[in-house]
Amino acid sequence: MNRVLAHTGARYPIVQAPMGWIARTQLASAVSRAGGLGIIETSSGETANCQREITAMSALGLPFGVNLPIRFLKDDAMLRFVCESGVKFVTTSAGSPAKFIRPLKDAGIVVYHAVPTVDTALKCVDAGIDGLVVEGAEGGGFKNPEEVSTLVLLQAIRARMDVPLIAAGGICDGRGMAAAFALGAEAIQMGTRFVSCSESPVHANYKNAIVDAGETGTWVLNKKSSPCIRALKSQRTQAIHEAGLMPADTFANLKSVYFDGDMEAAPALAGQTVGLIDSIKTAQEIIEETVSEFFAITARLGALAAARSFG
Amino acid sequence: MNRVLAHTGARYPIVQAPMGWIARTQLASAVSRAGGLGIIETSSGETANCQREITAMSALGLPFGVNLPIRFLKDDAMLRFVCESGVKFVTTSAGSPAKFIRPLKDAGIVVYHAVPTVDTALKCVDAGIDGLVVEGAEGGGFKNPEEVSTLVLLQAIRARMDVPLIAAGGICDGRGMAAAFALGAEAIQMGTRFVSCSESPVHANYKNAIVDAGETGTWVLNKKSSPCIRALKSQRTQAIHEAGLMPADTFANLKSVYFDGDMEAAPALAGQTVGLIDSIKTAQEIIEETVSEFFAITARLGALAAARSFG
Repeated sequence: MNRVLAHTGARYPIVQAPMGWIARTQLASAVSRAGGLGIIETSSGETANCQREITAMSALGLPFGVNLPIRFLKDDAMLRFVCESGVKFVTTSAGSPAKFIRPLKDAGIVVYHAVPTVDTALKCVDAGIDGLVVEGAEGGGFKNPEEVSTLVLLQAIRARMDVPLIAAGGICDGRGMAAAFALGAEAIQMGTRFVSCSESPVHANYKNAIVDAGETGTWVLNKKSSPCIRALKSQRTQAIHEAGLMPADTFANLKSVYFDGDMEAAPALAGQTVGLIDSIKTAQEIIEETVSEFFAITARLGALAAARSFG
Repeated sequence: MNRVLAHTGARYPIVQAPMGWIARTQLASAVSRAGGLGIIETSSGETANCQREITAMSALGLPFGVNLPIRFLKDDAMLRFVCESGVKFVTTSAGSPAKFIRPLKDAGIVVYHAVPTVDTALKCVDAGIDGLVVEGAEGGGFKNPEEVSTLVLLQAIRARMDVPLIAAGGICDGRGMAAAFALGAEAIQMGTRFVSCSESPVHANYKNAIVDAGETGTWVLNKKSSPCIRALKSQRTQAIHEAGLMPADTFANLKSVYFDGDMEAAPALAGQTVGLIDSIKTAQEIIEETVSEFFAITARLGALAAARSFG
């Protein structure tokens, strides 16, 4: 039995990442309707709006989850709301989940924490986490400056613990999903892929920038300070790259990137999968193609094993 | 038919990386005897020594290859020697293979070039290369500062061309091999794993440092200059990391790291797989365990496909 499916109630072990402002009902419901697991974000810090989104998503009767980025929450309001709202699945991120686990578990919620290293994974398991989102350096958005890749991180964590793992970073289709399962994951999470999908609320310029970028189209910025991020190359991020450090007001106009399509207003967060994404598809197309490619590849690999052959 | 096996004559599609000074007959013959493909290095620049090694390796009658790091070759002596020596398989790296391809092909040699990006891969195919070593950012030694991971790079290159691909970077066993094959590779190359193996000529301190390091135990240095490298964390590499740039004489005492075990004499080149390697094994143990784990994982994935199930 796939434990992530048992924990989430989704039909397919394909999770949508919790991008601030973007991961709301419009996108999450499209993902969940197609059989994946939509996640509602709270990292925007817009408490009232996010609470409305959780209520709206709940009303649809689809499996879904909520992300709580611990370090970015101003107070306990969102935590309390989630505990009382009937939400069944939460991913925590950006900080230690130790304080959050007890109230969430007491509310009957399954909790996965997003981890960038083995050490944080070990601490999460000690704290009683149900599973982990294993976030490799390829992913977009806030990153750990150690930059351990999905390939290495998944193996290193799987070798040390048996909790269910959702692989994130560098995955946007059935090829990456098959590789993740080979390494011991039971599910995948995709961010950049869903930012660029038809039902994503972002401006067409952002979606097209993702489609147009190659595999060297992003970089990791602000590695010696916080937050360390992965974003699309642009004039603005070139300046941050050259300076090495990121001005404090860098994200003041992030919503202008997302919703007005001004790609120089702030760093446009995106993962290395921009080099693999070459068209805008619906959530349903993405999920169905991922599942079908996953089974085609696992069948091909199974035939190698059956023949004890390498090709 | 596995094209890398057809091109190399090896029993298993497992290639040993061409580490300067380290990848000589002692190590390469152990790898080739165990069914993998040993490679003789020439990046040390020790032309006479490397020619002797190629002659010694040839005399054993085992499949093997030679690496020619184009940018580091002082003159055509090594190229001419390789063309006349009966070598059947060459990997080129560090520079454009365009000038090298014709003489090598005229000598009946199969040529693979090591590439860190899609653009270089496309140029290689135009130049008539037989296959590619796809080098993700996880690998040790000389790196491309774009740091595209093996997971993303393999997919991006496979999507654009059909030549045989050897996956390198972040792979040290059958888990990584199965993931690489899921992504379209037909072989894997391992460097750090073989640096740390019993038959490797390096000092025990170097092997133990690889075994002891975790998945965050390396970093990429000198990204804004050349050469950009991945090496173990140490006091010396910490200083380079903080300065951002690497002094010109950094590698003057590299052989003291390798053969005297003075781990602060120079950056000790190593990949992120240091976080996955936890013991020193013989080349034969490494290769047999890799093959057996590869088939165990591909059989497990094949069973998922047969059941159309995720676990």
